Amino acid sequence: MTPTDHFELLGRDGPARAGRLTTPHGVVRTPAFMPIGTAGAMKGVHWRDVRDAGTDIVLGNTYHLMLRPGAERIAALGGLQTFTGWQGPMLTDSGGFQVMSLAQLRKVSESAVTFRSHIDGAKVELSPERAIEVQLLLGSDIAMQLDECVRLPAERGDIERAMQLSLRWAERCKRAFETAAPGCMLFGIAQGGDVPELRRTSARGLVDIGFHGYAIGGLAVGEPQAVMLAMIEEVAPILPQDRPRYLMGVGTPEDMLEAVARGIDMFDCVMPTRNGRHGVAFTQFGQVNLRNARHADDPRPLDEQSAWPSTRGCARAYLHHLVKSGETLGAMLLSEINIAYYQHLMRGIGEAISKGTFERFRQRTRADWAKGDVAPR
Amino acid sequence: MTPTDHFELLGRDGPARAGRLTTPHGVVRTPAFMPIGTAGAMKGVHWRDVRDAGTDIVLGNTYHLMLRPGAERIAALGGLQTFTGWQGPMLTDSGGFQVMSLAQLRKVSESAVTFRSHIDGAKVELSPERAIEVQLLLGSDIAMQLDECVRLPAERGDIERAMQLSLRWAERCKRAFETAAPGCMLFGIAQGGDVPELRRTSARGLVDIGFHGYAIGGLAVGEPQAVMLAMIEEVAPILPQDRPRYLMGVGTPEDMLEAVARGIDMFDCVMPTRNGRHGVAFTQFGQVNLRNARHADDPRPLDEQSAWPSTRGCARAYLHHLVKSGETLGAMLLSEINIAYYQHLMRGIGEAISKGTFERFRQRTRADWAKGDVAPR
Repeated sequence: MTPTDHFELLGRDGPARAGRLTTPHGVVRTPAFMPIGTAGAMKGVHWRDVRDAGTDIVLGNTYHLMLRPGAERIAALGGLQTFTGWQGPMLTDSGGFQVMSLAQLRKVSESAVTFRSHIDGAKVELSPERAIEVQLLLGSDIAMQLDECVRLPAERGDIERAMQLSLRWAERCKRAFETAAPGCMLFGIAQGGDVPELRRTSARGLVDIGFHGYAIGGLAVGEPQAVMLAMIEEVAPILPQDRPRYLMGVGTPEDMLEAVARGIDMFDCVMPTRNGRHGVAFTQFGQVNLRNARHADDPRPLDEQSAWPSTRGCARAYLHHLVKSGETLGAMLLSEINIAYYQHLMRGIGEAISKGTFERFRQRTRADWAKGDVAPR
Repeated sequence: MTPTDHFELLGRDGPARAGRLTTPHGVVRTPAFMPIGTAGAMKGVHWRDVRDAGTDIVLGNTYHLMLRPGAERIAALGGLQTFTGWQGPMLTDSGGFQVMSLAQLRKVSESAVTFRSHIDGAKVELSPERAIEVQLLLGSDIAMQLDECVRLPAERGDIERAMQLSLRWAERCKRAFETAAPGCMLFGIAQGGDVPELRRTSARGLVDIGFHGYAIGGLAVGEPQAVMLAMIEEVAPILPQDRPRYLMGVGTPEDMLEAVARGIDMFDCVMPTRNGRHGVAFTQFGQVNLRNARHADDPRPLDEQSAWPSTRGCARAYLHHLVKSGETLGAMLLSEINIAYYQHLMRGIGEAISKGTFERFRQRTRADWAKGDVAPR
């Protein structure tokens, strides 16, 4: 892969970076948070609101989409953007992670992973080549290599075997990606569990192969935050400065802030929508559980300083009522409120890096979270 | 009740009427369709989209709101509009219908209906006076009298008893409403099941008492459409021309078109949102079941001539996929698509009446529905 001008670094402040990533479907400001449109839909949020909330890029799950409605069908319908109506950049995962977590009777061999669909039990084979083919059929802007992700804690031997297999699959993915349309990107994924040496070996192996960007996978699977941050510190210095770095499946606002401080540019996580469905809001003063009875008579909004209309406009008492009543609108409002907060945080981080004030921003943001929610009324 | 200028007739075309109803929270164009925000929320639709879809007024369910979060609480929070963020007119029902359909251990006496809450089993008494008090606490623009609604088919004796009780409750509701804020309205409800004579007696009794508007209740409970239309034909000629008429719980687009042709001005129904949640869209070419496999590969929108973005913009294949996958977004999109179609129909009817072309509009609209959906691709 020859160097490209896909990614442009606009600012650096210590290891923290701000930049812009140009894809066939538009520009992504980094650091970037990618909300997850699992099966071609964001759960409970209209695409127009995903965009208005400040989202540049979303993630689509290859596993779900290949099973239903099917990659060939989406290709015939013009690709994911035309199909879904989301007119911006999309990153697709390789399907590997969901195969491990959702599929039945899965079996990993050198050539591929085979499994039975959780929808209809059909037997499916996903090889590195097929993972790339599917992502190209979907019309992905950023495709991910197929990898094997091991749950932690795990034996070093198992972690190493999966990491080495992932490296061999990375090479096969790169070859399969040679037919991709200009402008599309392929990211490699560093594995290695919680073993520093294996993480470094994985990262060096990927850099030798060469990718448009580099992801760190196999984290945010239950390990302590300190382990996750330590693994980033092992891997990030090995990765080329001129390529974007993506920490997969992360995370809380604090996880993201600390990962940016260690040189990460991109994130994805179900947390804003999943926690929203469970009645939890993310705000500049930390997480707020709207189920709590303290909100039942509180006319105040979640954050009157927020730029997002629902965050500034909806009474806590109303959100509490919706959540307690199981009204869909409660999940809808909290999901968009949370995506808006995540994107607001990303913009704040990016601006601080560009101005060289990231460390101050980081301390103030952490202090606000620690301060906690307003006192009950 | 002295005559007011709440309601202004702007056009008449045979028995069909177009007008404007002025409430404390804004103007309602009639004929008007009121989507139902049951427990202070429209199921699956943001208030901003309810408004953008062309809705002037929504309906809130007193039964649900008095049980949770409670009328006194909503009053303390500034009323339904401030609580929910819906800044337009609201009509509240009296709670009587839901008591009959949802509550447990209900008992109707001369003084009140008592029941146990379906939420927590608490014993609740709802008298005509309490029904009005609750609606005034909610801050309703249009309150409804408490009535007793009998399921059809029923014995004439039962229908008559409930109708006479409803008339006596109508008088008590009117007295209780004397403390209402200026501009708020109270509607009486004509009962009488499927018995023409009882319907006429009920309507005459209500007109003698005098209300800001008149509703026809106890229909759309399973009887054939012909019976419903026949009952409208009994009642409408008795009602004063200068007051709005509201057919409760109706209905399909065809029900509404035919009811307007017989002099009705207002409607409410869960159908746009409920059918939307079940994968059914309303369009100018009738109902479309998006579950049907014929849509799986169809890139065309539901109606490319529609003014509503999702109706014109979403591929049938995408809606089919969302419905089949059980994605919330499918219900959200179809609910707003259906509300937008209902409001589009109301505007078309109103304009045709104002221009004196209602009969032509009615025939053309019925012909389009009969034509059915586009041929599969």
